[in-house]
Amino acid sequence: MTLRSTLDFLLYDWLDAQSLTARTRFADHSRETFDAVLDTCERIAREKYAPFNRTVDIEEPHFDGEKVILPQATYEARKAYAESGLLSAAQDYEVGGMQLPYAVEAAANSFFAVASISIGSNLLTSGNANLLMVHGTEAQKQVFALNEFNGRWSGTMCLSEPQAGSSLSDVATRAVPDGDGFEADPLGARYRLTGNKMWISSGDHELTENIVHLVLAKIPGPDGKLVPGTKGISLFIVPKKLVDTEGKLTGVRNDVALAGLNHKLGWRGTTNTLLNFGEGRFPVEGKAGAVGYLVGQPGKGLHCMFHMMNEARIGIGMAATMLGLAGYYASLDYARNRPQGRPVQGPKDGAAAVVKDAAQPQVRIIEHADVKRMLLAQKSYGEGALALNLFCAKLVDEQHTGDAATADEARLLLEVLTPIAKSWPSEFCLEANSLAIQIHGGYGYTRDFPVEQYWRDNRLNMIHEGTHGIQAMDLLGRKVLMEGGRGLQLLAGRINATIERAIQVPALAAHANALGKALQDVGAATKAAWATGQPADALANAVPYMQAFGHTVLAWVWLDVALATLARDADLAQPASVGRMGGMRFFFHYELPKIGAWLQVVSTRDATCAAFPEEAF
Amino acid sequence: MTLRSTLDFLLYDWLDAQSLTARTRFADHSRETFDAVLDTCERIAREKYAPFNRTVDIEEPHFDGEKVILPQATYEARKAYAESGLLSAAQDYEVGGMQLPYAVEAAANSFFAVASISIGSNLLTSGNANLLMVHGTEAQKQVFALNEFNGRWSGTMCLSEPQAGSSLSDVATRAVPDGDGFEADPLGARYRLTGNKMWISSGDHELTENIVHLVLAKIPGPDGKLVPGTKGISLFIVPKKLVDTEGKLTGVRNDVALAGLNHKLGWRGTTNTLLNFGEGRFPVEGKAGAVGYLVGQPGKGLHCMFHMMNEARIGIGMAATMLGLAGYYASLDYARNRPQGRPVQGPKDGAAAVVKDAAQPQVRIIEHADVKRMLLAQKSYGEGALALNLFCAKLVDEQHTGDAATADEARLLLEVLTPIAKSWPSEFCLEANSLAIQIHGGYGYTRDFPVEQYWRDNRLNMIHEGTHGIQAMDLLGRKVLMEGGRGLQLLAGRINATIERAIQVPALAAHANALGKALQDVGAATKAAWATGQPADALANAVPYMQAFGHTVLAWVWLDVALATLARDADLAQPASVGRMGGMRFFFHYELPKIGAWLQVVSTRDATCAAFPEEAF
Repeated sequence: MTLRSTLDFLLYDWLDAQSLTARTRFADHSRETFDAVLDTCERIAREKYAPFNRTVDIEEPHFDGEKVILPQATYEARKAYAESGLLSAAQDYEVGGMQLPYAVEAAANSFFAVASISIGSNLLTSGNANLLMVHGTEAQKQVFALNEFNGRWSGTMCLSEPQAGSSLSDVATRAVPDGDGFEADPLGARYRLTGNKMWISSGDHELTENIVHLVLAKIPGPDGKLVPGTKGISLFIVPKKLVDTEGKLTGVRNDVALAGLNHKLGWRGTTNTLLNFGEGRFPVEGKAGAVGYLVGQPGKGLHCMFHMMNEARIGIGMAATMLGLAGYYASLDYARNRPQGRPVQGPKDGAAAVVKDAAQPQVRIIEHADVKRMLLAQKSYGEGALALNLFCAKLVDEQHTGDAATADEARLLLEVLTPIAKSWPSEFCLEANSLAIQIHGGYGYTRDFPVEQYWRDNRLNMIHEGTHGIQAMDLLGRKVLMEGGRGLQLLAGRINATIERAIQVPALAAHANALGKALQDVGAATKAAWATGQPADALANAVPYMQAFGHTVLAWVWLDVALATLARDADLAQPASVGRMGGMRFFFHYELPKIGAWLQVVSTRDATCAAFPEEAF
Repeated sequence: MTLRSTLDFLLYDWLDAQSLTARTRFADHSRETFDAVLDTCERIAREKYAPFNRTVDIEEPHFDGEKVILPQATYEARKAYAESGLLSAAQDYEVGGMQLPYAVEAAANSFFAVASISIGSNLLTSGNANLLMVHGTEAQKQVFALNEFNGRWSGTMCLSEPQAGSSLSDVATRAVPDGDGFEADPLGARYRLTGNKMWISSGDHELTENIVHLVLAKIPGPDGKLVPGTKGISLFIVPKKLVDTEGKLTGVRNDVALAGLNHKLGWRGTTNTLLNFGEGRFPVEGKAGAVGYLVGQPGKGLHCMFHMMNEARIGIGMAATMLGLAGYYASLDYARNRPQGRPVQGPKDGAAAVVKDAAQPQVRIIEHADVKRMLLAQKSYGEGALALNLFCAKLVDEQHTGDAATADEARLLLEVLTPIAKSWPSEFCLEANSLAIQIHGGYGYTRDFPVEQYWRDNRLNMIHEGTHGIQAMDLLGRKVLMEGGRGLQLLAGRINATIERAIQVPALAAHANALGKALQDVGAATKAAWATGQPADALANAVPYMQAFGHTVLAWVWLDVALATLARDADLAQPASVGRMGGMRFFFHYELPKIGAWLQVVSTRDATCAAFPEEAF
């Protein structure tokens, strides 16, 4: 099936996205307007992204001493994306936005991701500007956010530092008031920032006239010391080039200097940088420190940043998913066209040996059962992950536009599901990419085929936007406990509702029972993990817990998708329906049983790893 | 633990390799001579291989129109390796060999593999020459094999063709007699070969004065047609440059032309080529076809080639293993030195939330339980795989030098274990490399650290020397059935012997029971898979079968290693002993339970994949 047909089924037949048009915010929309957005994005991605995916891998960004050099294709892809209007898809009409549901926006962005994941970093720019629309002053919105939405400028998120990768409490970038009257600057309270930021995507380039950095930093207390922990963190706008209140460049370079480009395993279309703020290379008005404007309240920086966290993490889950599907489509095409080998035949004359008749012509490799297994695994991982991520994207819409009870449920479900939406595709769609290589045999190991790049690109997704380990701690250490476990109960309720419907369908009853058992097992393991009340006991096996939790969620998603499939095509008259039922069965037969091994160590609070002495490694 | 200390334990304490010196062939050896070889190889690998592993990745081989260009480091590494004498380690003293047991040779080669897997392709040269010592004529041994052993020339294996990757029955390279008297050539019956060979490692370069290609080709029948299937395949020596009976170059280039270098994901220190034989670029004596000399009997080419198959596949298993351990050592070093984050603490005031005290200094990441988990997984995979491969290497020695009954048992055990020795490390030590990246966080995704290269290099091992799917078909379709299932029974006997010893040791009894259960499950699944007698039913899930089989074998190896550990250090006074017991426990707690999910689809002959219609993908 094509990506478009899969998206159409999931969005409209499964998630009923068109029902969102009954909400005031989306009232001017219809399935037709949604489709028009999808059509446009599919076309731009096909024309401006897909042909250049290998180009941006080969022509890695480099710094010539003055500027960061990127391939011409990147400029053109960015221009086309900005012109599509997607940068401000979620925004109000009055600021030039589309008031598009997030579920549709996510689906639209999937075309770019499957075509070339790294050619743009537009989601960062959107995320940056969306954040400013919520937490910024009027002037900050007008000057910074709107110029990001219209494509003139781009945005970054500057969180990590060399000594503080995943540990934001150790942020050491300092922000001090910029002289008398610092609070009166029309662009926001004006500070001077000094510090180094690591892993900054799109941190420097010439793609846009200016770059709007959103920077986490700490304002020293009266004693001049930084407050330990995350409570001391504030958020600042630090433009690469200073601007006036009209959004015009003043001609003054801010003191933000590129300290280095990271040379990566993949995802090479996007620059990744080490930036030095206030090191003195570009002093402003002869004073130390990069100029930054406070966003929101002092000490509330993480709060502002985490506001966008669910969407950012769903974005990573979608990226991983689309790389998984890209490999699936590529290996499916290869398997349909590559002749090699012959089917095994029954034993002759009672001999057990496997017989192949070399006088027969070779068959296409898609006819081999093991190749089918590798294709079906990819389909099951990729389409399952896509369904989960679109489900979560629609929850974002429910949270923003549903009635109070609906919105609150959506919020809580998102809290529990976001670690899965981010982690599960990043692990299993990476495995899908490995299977895509395997189907290609030796050819898959060469750079003449795209699959090795997908695999390299996808390896990032378990690392950025919160590592696998951090997602697992978030899930088992926070999300399943919060509000007295209400999020987990809500999710269990949704899963049980699907089970109750499926158990009445003969083709699904066994799977419904298997899912019910899995849900019980996850619930029991959650309790067992926390039986001592000690985080160190519970969280030692947080990752296996998350793997089992994720597989259970995916089994639920597949069962629910199967119900929607049968509701639409009970006779399975269409190949797409047969395919979805097969993808569901694969997941229940080959994947769901794996949770037993993962949960066993969780339930017993296995201390093999935690108690292992360092000197014994 | 260092690689050397692990090798010492496995070779001497576990496998009792020194007992081999009681055999006539190895009578001049002692632990001291073995150690001297290990010392030498460890030193050469440290000096000539390790410092250049990234160099050969960056300075990929390229063809300047005349010659293949390789980094200078590759020349020096090859020279040092040849001077070590390891190329002929297995050979008789009288031809300059060491008469070294294969187990010790494999251990010695592991130092090169861990330092830089792709810088040399010496195992191919050894394998080529060793084959000629068994199947070649006296003249072929003297002229070709001995000049490979002494380092003057190198060797290749030319099996695959562009249209026949894994399917050797479709080899289309033709070999026709080279005129009257072709059988009288002193170097062997002389043929002219025409055809294309793909994926030829070290197929062209200037590292050695000459290259000795061993080429599979078919001699047409009287009707001029090639016999379908593998029976028609013969083996030929095709030197890049023609030589006389003294081994001197005649100055005549043979008609072997480099048609292309493959540009690979990893393993870039070794050229990989498409070679055209007899395309007419270098005509010899004005006639068509590359000159080749028949090795062994016509039609017995695969028999000659497969003679070396077990050792070649163990070689790949060792390569995958050493890449896994290289990543383990690198990430262990990183985890010991990188400060980041703080340990989780118990809840305060009854609140369930996880507490971290930001005022405390950061800890090194090795103190985090999840990092320990990722390290212990790598240790358990890598050291377990090393143990299995050394066990198989010693079986090669038993096969060659044991008494008749021992040799026959060793042969049969090797038949069953070789698919595991090759496939298991290539899958799970690749996973280990992914964990090594994960431990490094963002740094692991950059080319500033070695782990991303290990991961790329290791991805090859599931593909070459028989893909994962082919190993699985070999295991379930042939090896567990052959000789009435005697190989499987032999292996079960060995596993049960370990279980019987372990069950008497309190610390191991539970694991012994778990292994006994796993062995029963694998046996039952084997029967169930073949219950219909139809290969198509049995083999549809051959890969999950192989995964479960492999995990059971690895659990056995770990349990046996644990017995040897306790035999030497019952009080676990040494960190190394504690480490091995932890590695064993990890495997039994976290890994062995996974076999249930794999075997379920085997036992039910699950047809979800095989029956999936192509149009539904």
